[in-house]
Amino acid sequence: MSGEGDFIALMRDLAAPDSARALLDDVAVLRAHGTLVLTTDTMAEGVHYLPGDPPETVGWKIAAVNLSDLAAKGARPIGCLVNYALSGDAAWDAAFARGLGEAVARFGMPVLGGDTISMLQGMLRSISLTAIGQATCEPVPSRTGAHPGDQLYITGPVGNAGAGLRLLQAGKAEPADLIEAYRRPMPRIEAGRAFAPSANASMDVSDGLLIDAQRMAQASNVAIVIDHVPISGSLAALKGRTIEARIEAACAGDDYELLFAMPPEFVPPAGSTLIRVGEVVEGEGLKLLLDGQVQVLPSRLGWEHGAGQN
Amino acid sequence: MSGEGDFIALMRDLAAPDSARALLDDVAVLRAHGTLVLTTDTMAEGVHYLPGDPPETVGWKIAAVNLSDLAAKGARPIGCLVNYALSGDAAWDAAFARGLGEAVARFGMPVLGGDTISMLQGMLRSISLTAIGQATCEPVPSRTGAHPGDQLYITGPVGNAGAGLRLLQAGKAEPADLIEAYRRPMPRIEAGRAFAPSANASMDVSDGLLIDAQRMAQASNVAIVIDHVPISGSLAALKGRTIEARIEAACAGDDYELLFAMPPEFVPPAGSTLIRVGEVVEGEGLKLLLDGQVQVLPSRLGWEHGAGQN
Repeated sequence: MSGEGDFIALMRDLAAPDSARALLDDVAVLRAHGTLVLTTDTMAEGVHYLPGDPPETVGWKIAAVNLSDLAAKGARPIGCLVNYALSGDAAWDAAFARGLGEAVARFGMPVLGGDTISMLQGMLRSISLTAIGQATCEPVPSRTGAHPGDQLYITGPVGNAGAGLRLLQAGKAEPADLIEAYRRPMPRIEAGRAFAPSANASMDVSDGLLIDAQRMAQASNVAIVIDHVPISGSLAALKGRTIEARIEAACAGDDYELLFAMPPEFVPPAGSTLIRVGEVVEGEGLKLLLDGQVQVLPSRLGWEHGAGQN
Repeated sequence: MSGEGDFIALMRDLAAPDSARALLDDVAVLRAHGTLVLTTDTMAEGVHYLPGDPPETVGWKIAAVNLSDLAAKGARPIGCLVNYALSGDAAWDAAFARGLGEAVARFGMPVLGGDTISMLQGMLRSISLTAIGQATCEPVPSRTGAHPGDQLYITGPVGNAGAGLRLLQAGKAEPADLIEAYRRPMPRIEAGRAFAPSANASMDVSDGLLIDAQRMAQASNVAIVIDHVPISGSLAALKGRTIEARIEAACAGDDYELLFAMPPEFVPPAGSTLIRVGEVVEGEGLKLLLDGQVQVLPSRLGWEHGAGQN
């Protein structure tokens, strides 16, 4: 059996019972009603993951980064299509499939179809996934709806994944929870389902809190003030809680927490993980206020699309 | 503006007015009713197109190969998502966008979303497109429904694109129609709409008539006899109409004609391009009968997935 045949057999274990047509046809067939939410992300070796990352985590991550976009819109995952470049290493491919399988099983996003190609010698691996979800609220919140007066909330602390990446780049493997945050981000599907319906604007924070908040401000024609940068105990233990450490965390990518602009009357339910990080005001641009002081924004607010990690 | 910003601006011109959210959000939002048909294909430089192919034709082709899968199922294109790797050459990217734009405008498949990444130095370009169509008949025909007694039809001659590829590989640029067949395949959307509803099985012929007919036979648990290999006048002028030339044409990929298994009572309408090429019989496997003689099948029936062109 060819490498492709082996890989498709692994995908068949992850496939939707009906829609995927057992991956024996050229197409998937999906009965759909209502509003679908569609998103796609590509991860390239050396750009979006490290060549030494365990393949299980690469498989997990290509699902997780797409699930995170569905989560930001409150969508329920329906299925996905996978564009895979065979690595020439059957064990790598199988481990990738295991990690992908873990994510799609956990979040109910079976494989509907895909395309597998062989790479030429020397080609860097590039993997795409297109995710399809069912909207659970109307309108589906976008980045563009933030209003002056809205309060900004995030689903968890920032900077863990960026710190994990830098630890790996420095040849370190600890603290494990920071490495894990980089390699196995957790899409906030439940929080998205819970809070997207109340949000005037929402997005996932894939490139950094500051740059993504700035994008929301631009898209909504408003200004955003960030006045709190939540960081984890683990990150604080490593880097401290200085203003510099918090700014670094706010410029780090790959956290995949969700950012919501909530109307002023919104009150986070007791026990939710939502953390208030700022507010929407009239004007334009981004302002960072820490410990009561306006901070000079760093020249690089996060991972620029097309310029590195995202 | 970044290379990515420039490219997204070009894509915005191709975007669906509502669903794509002006490519300003992380997701597309699609109102859907009934049965959707989904397909995705990846094209890698040096594997699925030649490094010297004009970028307009690469843009056209990534749309066309996906449209061809929709065509085989009789689906009406709705939209697509594009995973693009910036080439580092803005003129190349712009020409790619023009070719893609020509195809999506012609076939009514606007861009709903996508992801653009930057490549590392020396990385070979890889581009994926995911196409979404609306089913126009139920059940949507698959590869698996061919019955003994069905007659096999194809929408046009085979071998043009394969001959075009070999001409290019030999440094030639003529005959232009064969080169064009390789570089700008024409998805048979109208023929698919017309004939898929009558078909017991259907697929597009992307890897070669013989290998794709064999796949249909396997998927349907039947045998297929191919007793006619239609070739164009242009190909015949180049290669003759010998049995060898016809077998070569039947093993050539990239034609993107449609192959239908039609019930015995089906009669092609006058004026249609359908050409009868064989029939479905009990048993398993593929048989090639030319000029009344059973032919020894070549060891390679077409482009194997993962082993080269598809």
